[in-house]
Amino acid sequence: MFRPEIKVVDCTIRDGGLTNDSFFTLDTVRAVYRATCEAGVDYVELGYRNNREMLAGDYGPWRFCDEKQLRDVVEGIDPRDTKVSLMMDAHKSDPKDLAPADQSVADMIRVATYVKDADKAIRLCNDATEKGYETTINIMAISKEGGPFLEQALQQFEEETKAQAVYVVDSFGALYSEEVHYLIELYRMHIKTKEIGVHFHNNQQLAFANTIEGIIKEANYVDGTLYGLGRGAGNCPLELLLGFLKNPKFRILPVLEVIGSKIIPLQEEIDWGYRVPYMLTGILNRHPEAAMKWMAGKTKHDYAEFYKRLTDEIEE
Amino acid sequence: MFRPEIKVVDCTIRDGGLTNDSFFTLDTVRAVYRATCEAGVDYVELGYRNNREMLAGDYGPWRFCDEKQLRDVVEGIDPRDTKVSLMMDAHKSDPKDLAPADQSVADMIRVATYVKDADKAIRLCNDATEKGYETTINIMAISKEGGPFLEQALQQFEEETKAQAVYVVDSFGALYSEEVHYLIELYRMHIKTKEIGVHFHNNQQLAFANTIEGIIKEANYVDGTLYGLGRGAGNCPLELLLGFLKNPKFRILPVLEVIGSKIIPLQEEIDWGYRVPYMLTGILNRHPEAAMKWMAGKTKHDYAEFYKRLTDEIEE
Repeated sequence: MFRPEIKVVDCTIRDGGLTNDSFFTLDTVRAVYRATCEAGVDYVELGYRNNREMLAGDYGPWRFCDEKQLRDVVEGIDPRDTKVSLMMDAHKSDPKDLAPADQSVADMIRVATYVKDADKAIRLCNDATEKGYETTINIMAISKEGGPFLEQALQQFEEETKAQAVYVVDSFGALYSEEVHYLIELYRMHIKTKEIGVHFHNNQQLAFANTIEGIIKEANYVDGTLYGLGRGAGNCPLELLLGFLKNPKFRILPVLEVIGSKIIPLQEEIDWGYRVPYMLTGILNRHPEAAMKWMAGKTKHDYAEFYKRLTDEIEE
Repeated sequence: MFRPEIKVVDCTIRDGGLTNDSFFTLDTVRAVYRATCEAGVDYVELGYRNNREMLAGDYGPWRFCDEKQLRDVVEGIDPRDTKVSLMMDAHKSDPKDLAPADQSVADMIRVATYVKDADKAIRLCNDATEKGYETTINIMAISKEGGPFLEQALQQFEEETKAQAVYVVDSFGALYSEEVHYLIELYRMHIKTKEIGVHFHNNQQLAFANTIEGIIKEANYVDGTLYGLGRGAGNCPLELLLGFLKNPKFRILPVLEVIGSKIIPLQEEIDWGYRVPYMLTGILNRHPEAAMKWMAGKTKHDYAEFYKRLTDEIEE
């Protein structure tokens, strides 16, 4: 029933950090790390390794993931077979912030990039490979991409990097299943020696469903977060993913426990999940930022007005 | 892009009535009726026409939908092209409760049935047809059905009724996309002269996705509820469905308005949507009742304990 090649990446702390500027407590991060190790998840992404000077604003520790911070997370916890991942944004990261892998808690670097930043991504990816990390390249906002530049970037990633996977990342939660199939087939025309990964957002309640469709189309790197924690509508819920995969190496109980004890309480300070404004930006293939602003306002349930403004903007 | 044959059925009040024993206010029901008419939804299901003596317990008016009650709903509202549907449970309804269609507000009777009650369903369906109603047959708990009795029932519905559609109803929210494809193909082996319908629950966040998969496989009757209102994890959200269908006859603004003004406020008294216990009964292909009881208890977030009890029960 399961494919042993499938690798599950939990990115609760990394992607969930977009909801709270990465200000999770150490206790929460350790609990997530412990649970994902006990559950047998292949990779757990503990945050970003972005460059402090390239990021304006006030961010918590999981946006930078200094090695000392990472050691505090993993200390005393048996990793079993779970590896640690960090994400580096192509346009917000500097190779000099990355120590050699044998001096790091991290095992894998995932480079997040827009198509226009493909060359920055390749530089970061190859630097990480040379330093001994596993790597992936994650192409963001894929629902806005297409045409020759995407295909060129895919061909470059195939030829010029040792990334083990190249990801479809539906940042806007805009894709339907037929588009997922189409994109993976397009990727496969160029990505011959690497795996394909999928990362979906839940604006249209399709994050889990699209992940299944990715798996059906042979994507072997799949992302989830605990209870779907993530910006706006959130992500593919890890618990659903493990339930679907039915690989006997996974254990669901640690996942259920940490959701009840650590993730549900976060709902008091963080609002995420399916809401009409996020649905509307998803359907309209827009960044969720406008929806997040609307949700923070006094008339957040005046969905019709929000829709009118969104579509007026588009027509301008 | 769209198929004109597709008929959308809003069942907010009918299916949502399973969350509150059908005790919606007349104001709420009128608002839903008005919005679905303005939105151009093909059918709006205003409740059940069940038999008072066959139903034990205290239920609100939308479990019986007396004609006077229905007239109070529609009075003064332009139906445009929207027709009224009622549901009759095969094992809880009596043909004598149904007046001729020309004396009724309702246009369509949907007969809900388990496979074992196929003959009761056929009797009700044919009675409704003779009285002048459009009809459908909705096979509940389909994730538990299969084998010769399902196929016999499908063949009977095909040969012995004038139902215009026979539905796949995933009462437990257990189905994955490949199972939806499989079931529709199985239905199609028997259902040659009628449409196929789909009705999904959201235990695994797949209600909308599975509805899309049904549409791809040529199901032409599709159900949704406003903001997914429904028992436990709820249903396929109507707003997502209309956004996907892109049929120019639909108008999304009335739907957005009524969700904000009438459905969101119901969250203060009714809890519905994706929750871990509903997810677990879905994955385990169980009726959501155990999850609903667990959610009403003091330890509702102790998901691991709930999972252990569910799986212990199964092993007994």
